[in-house]
Amino acid sequence: MQIQNKILVANRGEIAVRIIRAAKEMGIATVAVYSTADKDSLHVDLADEAVCIGSERSKDSYLNMNRILSAAISTGCTAIHPGYGFLSENPKFVKLVEECNIKFIGPKSEVMEKMGKKAEARKIAKKNLVPIIEGSNDIIKDVQEGMAVAKRIGYPVMFKATSGGGGRGINVVYSDQDFLKVFEKTSLEAETSFGDKALYIEKYIDNPRHVEVQILADDYGNVVHLFERDCSLQRRNQKMIEEAPSNAVNELLRRKLGMAAIKIAKAVGYTSAGTIEFLVDNKGKYYFIEMNARIQVEHPVTEMITGVDIVKEQIRVAFGQALSIKQRDIKILGHAIECRITAEDPVNNFMPTPGRIKRILVPGGMGVRFDSFIYPDYDVQPFYDSMIGKVIVVAPTRIEAIRKMRVALEQLVIEGIKTNLEYVYLITHHPDFIRGNYDTGFVAKFHSLFLEEYHETIVKWAKKTINWI
Amino acid sequence: MQIQNKILVANRGEIAVRIIRAAKEMGIATVAVYSTADKDSLHVDLADEAVCIGSERSKDSYLNMNRILSAAISTGCTAIHPGYGFLSENPKFVKLVEECNIKFIGPKSEVMEKMGKKAEARKIAKKNLVPIIEGSNDIIKDVQEGMAVAKRIGYPVMFKATSGGGGRGINVVYSDQDFLKVFEKTSLEAETSFGDKALYIEKYIDNPRHVEVQILADDYGNVVHLFERDCSLQRRNQKMIEEAPSNAVNELLRRKLGMAAIKIAKAVGYTSAGTIEFLVDNKGKYYFIEMNARIQVEHPVTEMITGVDIVKEQIRVAFGQALSIKQRDIKILGHAIECRITAEDPVNNFMPTPGRIKRILVPGGMGVRFDSFIYPDYDVQPFYDSMIGKVIVVAPTRIEAIRKMRVALEQLVIEGIKTNLEYVYLITHHPDFIRGNYDTGFVAKFHSLFLEEYHETIVKWAKKTINWI
Repeated sequence: MQIQNKILVANRGEIAVRIIRAAKEMGIATVAVYSTADKDSLHVDLADEAVCIGSERSKDSYLNMNRILSAAISTGCTAIHPGYGFLSENPKFVKLVEECNIKFIGPKSEVMEKMGKKAEARKIAKKNLVPIIEGSNDIIKDVQEGMAVAKRIGYPVMFKATSGGGGRGINVVYSDQDFLKVFEKTSLEAETSFGDKALYIEKYIDNPRHVEVQILADDYGNVVHLFERDCSLQRRNQKMIEEAPSNAVNELLRRKLGMAAIKIAKAVGYTSAGTIEFLVDNKGKYYFIEMNARIQVEHPVTEMITGVDIVKEQIRVAFGQALSIKQRDIKILGHAIECRITAEDPVNNFMPTPGRIKRILVPGGMGVRFDSFIYPDYDVQPFYDSMIGKVIVVAPTRIEAIRKMRVALEQLVIEGIKTNLEYVYLITHHPDFIRGNYDTGFVAKFHSLFLEEYHETIVKWAKKTINWI
Repeated sequence: MQIQNKILVANRGEIAVRIIRAAKEMGIATVAVYSTADKDSLHVDLADEAVCIGSERSKDSYLNMNRILSAAISTGCTAIHPGYGFLSENPKFVKLVEECNIKFIGPKSEVMEKMGKKAEARKIAKKNLVPIIEGSNDIIKDVQEGMAVAKRIGYPVMFKATSGGGGRGINVVYSDQDFLKVFEKTSLEAETSFGDKALYIEKYIDNPRHVEVQILADDYGNVVHLFERDCSLQRRNQKMIEEAPSNAVNELLRRKLGMAAIKIAKAVGYTSAGTIEFLVDNKGKYYFIEMNARIQVEHPVTEMITGVDIVKEQIRVAFGQALSIKQRDIKILGHAIECRITAEDPVNNFMPTPGRIKRILVPGGMGVRFDSFIYPDYDVQPFYDSMIGKVIVVAPTRIEAIRKMRVALEQLVIEGIKTNLEYVYLITHHPDFIRGNYDTGFVAKFHSLFLEEYHETIVKWAKKTINWI
């Protein structure tokens, strides 16, 4: 008897919708899980079955491993897709899934565990001759050892929590004088946030570009990369606008980054979709920083320039099939940009703005994609991430993609709650963004400008940039 | 002083929105025109300026040449885009536009006039060795001449009005006996509908495939084709579902069709976007039937498989620029399908169902495009074409595109009025559609099935086709 595959989607929001669509298109049944707060959520409506797994707080629902596994077993699921966030990079969860004889749509638990430890990942990169940012190479035991490292690699340096992530647990130190104070502060933060006070030290690179390479790998030793994404437009380490390819990467660097990413993935026996993150400094030097062992929010920009459906490849691989594509067939077919739309008020320090959506108009047309889960009369919940959608565009060139993004943002209407729509729209008109002349420090600088010149800015920039392509 | 270009969009509905978006993305200002019935229409809202040109009846507004030209002149427009339908293939209008020193976004008036006469177009094809359907080659003067032609090429034959189009003014005759009756009937219809009773005769081909080739041409002698579309799924000569490429076309035929299309376009000095329509019989023989000298409803399927924005190329060419693409760079990158969504009730003989839209959910995700102009609380007007949107999908293969279309149609929600959504959804589940085993007679046969088995059909087919790709 042929087993009918069924995927439990252990997530919510747009990524749950994204995964359900992919599974449906492949003829695979889906089971949604949801918290009581999400009972009217779109992913619940779209899935073939849905199971309530607890109350609104994440730890009682989307982070509750036992309830998710129970839901999977009781509905006869053959696989679990974790999405991003929540349990997606928790090797303990992956191990439990494996033990239940359910396929985890992601890497094996031991690979995830290895790559989840930053110091471990750096070692692997170094062994494979992929440049890393100079640093302690390992956990620093005490202040004396740390200061010796700082002396060797030169100030400024930064402390990073070995169990940290998403930019949390990081502090910069500029001299011996401040060393002890910052060390103790970071240790304490790391212990409170991650239950692990272990720190390592890295050379601090001022305002680099954040460039990451998407890879895909199957069980048969096939590993391909899908080129890079530029995610330098971040606010407090939260990405806001991403693009592919990166205009900070030339052909030679592109080849080097792709090869480095494949080398690391092969070295650890990685399978499924993953991302190798690099920093690129203003001289074009690149440094491995970490690997993300999951699908990422910004994966659509890569899909739009390559035509490869990354979620479908993940599902294929999890069910033991080979990748459907070969490296030589993967080409950059255009330029893609993504703007994350969040229920936040930029004027009020990005305070979340949950509430009822009154009206939505979605932009359409060629090369425009809107991945979302909101609909008229939907209540944006206060308990989870404030991202409510992603506008993605693709066009033959970067400047055409920017223009397409502006028109798409102009035509996206979300009424009922405040959003960052106008904020990202303004960024797409900033001369330095248009020129591609930005780094990870851009949004912070832009934010001051935004607060000062809020009202006049948009008119001024819009006028400046209307001209014939 | 650099002249600021400005385009008047002489149309309404989704194509007006499509053109406005393209112009905006190119930094070109737009002027919408609208009838009193369309004052709340989306194209009016999206354009930079809007001019009311008359009352609800098309002849008082969208067909009123003087009012449209006045609107263009008074707003300082440098170009007019006609869209499709209305005045888009009226050489008299094009000539007026040219005389006003405004650029017409389409071919020159004399070229349009020539290609608009079917008999003339057939002569041009024949002279260029492109196969045509055997026939009278010219207007038939009387019954005697017509019967001689019918004898030469063999029954069944059909009468076609030389000034007709869109499948109107056509009748089939099966024997000498019926000849006079059908001739007189068709003459009368032609005179009433087109003000020109001239007819020609063609061999009637039973249930062929309708295959058309998209071409683009500029003022510098560059002519490219963008491969073919299959538009065989028609109901009473109204296209319903289109795809690109056609599964009835192999590589050799594809090359022949492309070359034939380019030859015809070059022979008449065609510029802008145009479509060369062919019939392909069940032995793979092809016959030129006519040329459409305008953008077509189904142009997005070609855009989705080639990445070429056809409307932007039209605009470029009209303003004297060269095409942005070369033949060798145009590749088929996937398979695309379009379903036209109409405000019609299939159960009730496709009676138009104008009325207020209550709620819309638009499908999103990778490779899904929805070109429309409706929004919540919009009143679909009874005065114009009943098409309210187009769902277009692209995927690596035909079967994946079919699956993607089904999922997109499942997720498209339009409440408040009856539509054909379920009807096209059912077609995407029909075994013959899945196999690509259909012709221009398919929809008529499907319709009987639809009326008979309406309720059980969907469940039966859906079950049959759920399996792993």
